[in-house]
Amino acid sequence: MKTIFSKIIDGEIPCYKVAEDDRFFAFLDISPLSKGHTLVVPKQEVDYIFDLPETDLADMMLFAKRVAAALQKTVDCKRIGVAVIGLEVPHAHIHLIPIQAESDMIFSKPRVQLSPDEMSAIAAKAAEAFE
Amino acid sequence: MKTIFSKIIDGEIPCYKVAEDDRFFAFLDISPLSKGHTLVVPKQEVDYIFDLPETDLADMMLFAKRVAAALQKTVDCKRIGVAVIGLEVPHAHIHLIPIQAESDMIFSKPRVQLSPDEMSAIAAKAAEAFE
Repeated sequence: MKTIFSKIIDGEIPCYKVAEDDRFFAFLDISPLSKGHTLVVPKQEVDYIFDLPETDLADMMLFAKRVAAALQKTVDCKRIGVAVIGLEVPHAHIHLIPIQAESDMIFSKPRVQLSPDEMSAIAAKAAEAFE
Repeated sequence: MKTIFSKIIDGEIPCYKVAEDDRFFAFLDISPLSKGHTLVVPKQEVDYIFDLPETDLADMMLFAKRVAAALQKTVDCKRIGVAVIGLEVPHAHIHLIPIQAESDMIFSKPRVQLSPDEMSAIAAKAAEAFE
C-alpha cells in the first residue's frame, strides 16, 4: 500500500506544495511547528532515511538546502533547523523548520494554527523563491 | 578564535571520539539525550550547515550515515534520529540520536547521566563498529 506521502506526491491527497524535481518533493507540514515548516521526501518509498542509496541521500540533502534557502526568503527566521525522526510515517522525510530559538524544534509543543489561505500564501511564496 | 568543536578536533579539549576522516569528526555529546547521542562536525569552521560547499554538505550526510550505522550496532534503539539546530555553537553540527520514541528527540528534556566509564565504553564500541 502507498504511504500517505506517496499519495501526496501523486496528487491523491492535496498538499501545499513547495518544490519538486524528478526524485524529491517538498510540501508544508499540515501541523507546523513554525510558519513555513516543510517536509522533504524522496519519491522513492524508503522507510529509514539511511537506507536510501548513497547518491539519493546526498542529493536529498542538496535538495533540502535549496528548499531551506527558499524558506528563508519566505518567513522571518534565524535559520532553518533540520530534523529526521521517522517513527510515524514509514517513508523517509526531512523536517525543515524555520527557527528563531531552539525551542521551535520541540516536537511536543503546540503546533502553529494557520488558515488555508495563510498556508497557500506561504507555499506560493516559497515555491516562487525556490531555485 | 577557534570554536569549541575545533578545539575538540585539535585535541585541545578532550572528547569521546567515535570517528574521523580528513574532513569530518564525530564524538559523543557530553550531555546526551540518549545513550550514544553523537555530534558530527565538519573540520572546516562553518557556522550554518547550509553554507557548507555542496560537496561537503553531501559528504557530511554520507559520513553521518556511516556513524549512524555504527551507533545502531552499539546501543539499543529503533533507529538514529537526526537534528540540526545550530543556534548555540557557531560551528555546524549534526546530532545523531539513537531513539526508541519521538520523545527521545526533545531537546528540552532532562539529559541522560552517564559515567565517564560508560561514555568511554560507548565511544570505543561505536569506533570499533565504524566502517
